[in-house]
Amino acid sequence: MKSATEYLWFNTKNHREFINITDKVEDLVSRSSINEGFALVSAMHITDGVYVNDAESGLIADIEEWLEKLAPYRLGYRHHLTGETNGDAHLKSLLVHHEVIVPITEGKLDLGPWQQIYYAEFDGQRRKRVILKVLGE
Amino acid sequence: MKSATEYLWFNTKNHREFINITDKVEDLVSRSSINEGFALVSAMHITDGVYVNDAESGLIADIEEWLEKLAPYRLGYRHHLTGETNGDAHLKSLLVHHEVIVPITEGKLDLGPWQQIYYAEFDGQRRKRVILKVLGE
Amino acid sequence: MKSATEYLWFNTKNHREFINITDKVEDLVSRSSINEGFALVSAMHITDGVYVNDAESGLIADIEEWLEKLAPYRLGYRHHLTGETNGDAHLKSLLVHHEVIVPITEGKLDLGPWQQIYYAEFDGQRRKRVILKVLGE
Repeated sequence: MKSATEYLWFNTKNHREFINITDKVEDLVSRSSINEGFALVSAMHITDGVYVNDAESGLIADIEEWLEKLAPYRLGYRHHLTGETNGDAHLKSLLVHHEVIVPITEGKLDLGPWQQIYYAEFDGQRRKRVILKVLGE
Repeated sequence: MKSATEYLWFNTKNHREFINITDKVEDLVSRSSINEGFALVSAMHITDGVYVNDAESGLIADIEEWLEKLAPYRLGYRHHLTGETNGDAHLKSLLVHHEVIVPITEGKLDLGPWQQIYYAEFDGQRRKRVILKVLGE
Repeated sequence: MKSATEYLWFNTKNHREFINITDKVEDLVSRSSINEGFALVSAMHITDGVYVNDAESGLIADIEEWLEKLAPYRLGYRHHLTGETNGDAHLKSLLVHHEVIVPITEGKLDLGPWQQIYYAEFDGQRRKRVILKVLGE
């Protein structure tokens, strides 16, 4: 069995950002020499997420608007009694989920034609980390 | 370490369908001779999903109605400027998530008494693919 | 390759509960002697979930309120024709998802500073089970 691990660091300019990280995951898979296995891509914070979907800017704006509707930024979350103002970001993180597993086949990420891996930052402008871990043979 | 991979193809009659694929995953696990491991079941498109829940037709109708309420079909998604009309299907896919990992124990899928694996098609009537990949020993 | 499996049993006092199970997962990882791998934590029922987020009581109350808003308890789910009254619990389970994969690095769960693993019971007061399975080397 082989494994390889890498951490990606982000410090986004904007409060919310959607960043395509497919190339970085593919790069680790390539360096790991794993032919058959799984790639875990997982946010290490609780106000961001990782998902797989289309790299289309209109859709990304739709996703952001939709998340804001279902998990709105507002005052009054109980979590804000801690001094934080990011209750909505925790809920958005739960909604998109914080990790994905991508299959590795014949040494490459086995993604469908439109699938891309996104890091979704919901409370940025601070240092955040994503772990990539590949396991296989 | 052992691994096995298979692709399931779908071309649904209806625009939306929920298809129980537990038997197909169990079948690959059985052929793989893996006793302890993980089975990844992952949609390879961006307008469908894979989830684990109950094989009860009333519940499935509830799920479809609920997804339509939270991620409605409508005109006006920015994504539709590309010519597509399936913005809602992308959001539904994000909501149910596109993949699951099912544990393999003593050579079988280790599911609870009511757990079944479903392929959820939100934009059908075209060829779609799901990857099954099992890893273990 | 090494693997280890354990089942956690729950029978909650309340209809809904959020239980931090990070220590139990860490404990299995420690006993497994796995240095690099994945830990699967997966609910074995269809009316509960497993997620990773913050161990902050205000946030947990926010999450419960939010889930109730998006997937409300109510009469009239088609699923209730079976005699059940827990249609909302199935939808809440889909929303938070029923499983997570946590990376294992240098023999420990590789979680970010605030990440904790939660079992979310949406239809308790009965015996329920969660599977923990670790795989690696």
